[in-house]
Amino acid sequence: MEKTKRFFATPQDAETAFYEALEQANLEAMMSVWAEDEEVICVHPGGVRLAGYAEVMEGWRQMFAQGTRLQIALSNPVHVQGLLISVHSVHEHVVVVGEDVRTPPVVATNIYLRGAEGWRMLAHHASPVSTSVPLTVETPKTLH
Amino acid sequence: MEKTKRFFATPQDAETAFYEALEQANLEAMMSVWAEDEEVICVHPGGVRLAGYAEVMEGWRQMFAQGTRLQIALSNPVHVQGLLISVHSVHEHVVVVGEDVRTPPVVATNIYLRGAEGWRMLAHHASPVSTSVPLTVETPKTLH
Repeated sequence: MEKTKRFFATPQDAETAFYEALEQANLEAMMSVWAEDEEVICVHPGGVRLAGYAEVMEGWRQMFAQGTRLQIALSNPVHVQGLLISVHSVHEHVVVVGEDVRTPPVVATNIYLRGAEGWRMLAHHASPVSTSVPLTVETPKTLH
Repeated sequence: MEKTKRFFATPQDAETAFYEALEQANLEAMMSVWAEDEEVICVHPGGVRLAGYAEVMEGWRQMFAQGTRLQIALSNPVHVQGLLISVHSVHEHVVVVGEDVRTPPVVATNIYLRGAEGWRMLAHHASPVSTSVPLTVETPKTLH
């Protein structure tokens, strides 16, 4: 797989690229967001923990291979910004393209590290919010 | 509530105190682990996102008020350690005391910050792993 070297000047740039790659089911773009030299962590909703760049990539490869296209709107961001690390907590509102199914909202913790090549994702932990639990959601903010 | 000021010299010290407080259902000890001056984040398994010290405390208060006592063993730790922040990913194996029920394993992302008063928890994101998903688990490492 040819590597696209992209520079993310801010954690927000990396986050935007992450969700764009997810919507586009673009594995190369997705993996360009992740830190290659760290023990990266990825937990898909309801899924096992994937650890390490290779395992995380294989998880996305399998997910994208299913051919499902998603549209994702984000809301309720909470950001804790450090010099070298940034923690973003967001609600994801996921729509499966072509299906009239409302999936439960997902809460995601996204961690970004600043390295020589800009900001990269260290961890993505996403979990569905049980629909039996009341959830206050503001108007979703679309990514685009 | 009288504040116990405790100093955690390492992220691991804070993590040990976190799980001890959880097992003991001790709200004061639990809240002494959290960073008071940050926008802390807590996601209980299947639950909504709690944000801010007061909301996180109320979440623990309600949980502890239920009277359920838990025993928790941890396994599969992955740590990414920075100067001022530390990210721990662990599997939690939770047993409800007095009940012969096997709960599904939980994957937790714990984030600790180093401040003037030592290491404190910034975020705890826990989500159950769907039991339909195969999960390789090593022998659990008990906390004590």
